[in-house]
Amino acid sequence: MDVSDIRILSAASALPGDPVDNAALARRFGMDKLWEQWVDAFVGTKTRHLSLDLDSGKTLHSLADLAETAGRRALAAAGVEPADVDVMVLGTATPDLLMPATVNQVADRLGINDIPTYQLQSGCAGAVQALDVARKLLAVGGDGPRTALVLGGDVCAKHLDLQADLTALAPAELVNVLLFGDGAGAVVLSTEPRPQSTALRHVVNVLTGLGRDPGQVVEWYGMADRGAGHSAVREDYKAIEERVPLMAGEVLETVLGDLGWDREDVDYLLPPQLSGKMTSGIMTHLDVPGVEEVSCVTETGNNGNALPFLQLERTLPQLVTGDRAVAIAIESSKWIKAGFALERC
Amino acid sequence: MDVSDIRILSAASALPGDPVDNAALARRFGMDKLWEQWVDAFVGTKTRHLSLDLDSGKTLHSLADLAETAGRRALAAAGVEPADVDVMVLGTATPDLLMPATVNQVADRLGINDIPTYQLQSGCAGAVQALDVARKLLAVGGDGPRTALVLGGDVCAKHLDLQADLTALAPAELVNVLLFGDGAGAVVLSTEPRPQSTALRHVVNVLTGLGRDPGQVVEWYGMADRGAGHSAVREDYKAIEERVPLMAGEVLETVLGDLGWDREDVDYLLPPQLSGKMTSGIMTHLDVPGVEEVSCVTETGNNGNALPFLQLERTLPQLVTGDRAVAIAIESSKWIKAGFALERC
Repeated sequence: MDVSDIRILSAASALPGDPVDNAALARRFGMDKLWEQWVDAFVGTKTRHLSLDLDSGKTLHSLADLAETAGRRALAAAGVEPADVDVMVLGTATPDLLMPATVNQVADRLGINDIPTYQLQSGCAGAVQALDVARKLLAVGGDGPRTALVLGGDVCAKHLDLQADLTALAPAELVNVLLFGDGAGAVVLSTEPRPQSTALRHVVNVLTGLGRDPGQVVEWYGMADRGAGHSAVREDYKAIEERVPLMAGEVLETVLGDLGWDREDVDYLLPPQLSGKMTSGIMTHLDVPGVEEVSCVTETGNNGNALPFLQLERTLPQLVTGDRAVAIAIESSKWIKAGFALERC
Repeated sequence: MDVSDIRILSAASALPGDPVDNAALARRFGMDKLWEQWVDAFVGTKTRHLSLDLDSGKTLHSLADLAETAGRRALAAAGVEPADVDVMVLGTATPDLLMPATVNQVADRLGINDIPTYQLQSGCAGAVQALDVARKLLAVGGDGPRTALVLGGDVCAKHLDLQADLTALAPAELVNVLLFGDGAGAVVLSTEPRPQSTALRHVVNVLTGLGRDPGQVVEWYGMADRGAGHSAVREDYKAIEERVPLMAGEVLETVLGDLGWDREDVDYLLPPQLSGKMTSGIMTHLDVPGVEEVSCVTETGNNGNALPFLQLERTLPQLVTGDRAVAIAIESSKWIKAGFALERC
């Protein structure tokens, strides 16, 4: 089976609760109107969905909840029964538990059993990695799997400190309260070359972190070590701002070069979704004339491993035969360049 | 490239510190000689290696430390330079951080860059899953990867509560203090059919958890939720004791059936390594006449994702042309049956 002819049959997503706007965040953290305007202008993310209730702090949705819903929707959209799923791959930075893996809890809820499952521990490149692993498992051919349910998502609730004094936070920590959202997405991949389906032509996934400090660190704690007073989520926002647009450009060049496509061949571009502001800057840097941008971050926030699936959900219905799309994801944790290319058959 | 002809060029491991015997544990937790004898008889694990100093509680080794050492040793044993590694896959239940993934920190330390890397969130089946993913990535052929560094390991230090009163613990929690050890292992896989290398003929990895409660749960905490007073690691030891031998038998049958091998064809058996006592019971249950058992758990404890690599390290030097080996791993978290078969070429 040719790895470049695996088809994406459907894409779907699940977002927890109603969108939370910057005014609601300002109210919750006791910030003023000026702050709200600052977020609008300098972060550019208008709303996000959170898996917890802002007032009570209670967690309302787990990753398994969201991934189950996204998975169910993707299967329904593809007309695929749970019993027809041959392999599952899920990418996340924030599994509900260390064990069992969330993918196996999702399988249980969907009534899926007796198949191999894999869960990738991954950041913003995770959705791309999950797609890549799944398509290569499908490409083995023979008696191997023919239908894959690929999932990605993040629920950052355990890391959100609702007691935080935002006026006292360093910008690198403040930004964490604003940037992130929760959510999950899913696609169904198939070896079957259905007419008018979308081929996943190529995937790029390259670690480029040698000798570089991580741009993002996310910790977890056990019983023995409950944290040393610092935030569990830290970003080198300056490094991210500087490097991600350049890396995004490199991914675009690599994808196009590998496929022999020209910039003019790309009809849709799915850029990295760090924040409304950054995504807009990246689009300017990429400078692909006439391309249609498919972004969601201003409404969904940065929900990590869910994002490329959310972008796919918006892209697939728009594609007509011959259309080409390129998606780019950059993981700043240890500087991973990732992306993929689609072609409507 | 035929997926059943991927070769294992080498296997290596890294274990932290000196072995910690049951007498040392008894001293540390204020338990008596009778307790120590009970552990010897009913758990059957004599020693384990711990990544922390029992007296000070200080963590001395991270998963990245151990995986780096194991990886370096495996590369040296295979005569493969870091620059020749085309892909890395690491399996663990206990990554050092949620982000960056530990595999990327290990890559950095080994001087590996510009390749795809994957980290599986996995329990006792994780080493098998990592081998499976890696071999299928290699099997894509063409311009794809030809050499994979596959790693697995666990460091449970964050979960070990040195203040625990063992006399007050329920057996399901007590057993956690005794069963587990820390460590990492690594193998080098290659598409090159070197003479007198070992072929990874087959891998089985099947989730069978539908409708079943998890046999093991391992939690993590963030800033918002520091645990609700219960242990972060919980086992349904009765269910594990009852089901794992049966599942191990099923894996053996599946591997042999898939390959058309008879029980008499198996020269070496690498059984699940839950505890000295349980492994011994599983061997009795499997009842493969004349087979050579390769186990390490009585000396290393159950170090999760490291174990099959530790067993491989002991097996490979013994194999002569035509020898066949079967390894079995059972993940009780959500009941995953896993195993693989080797043949010396």
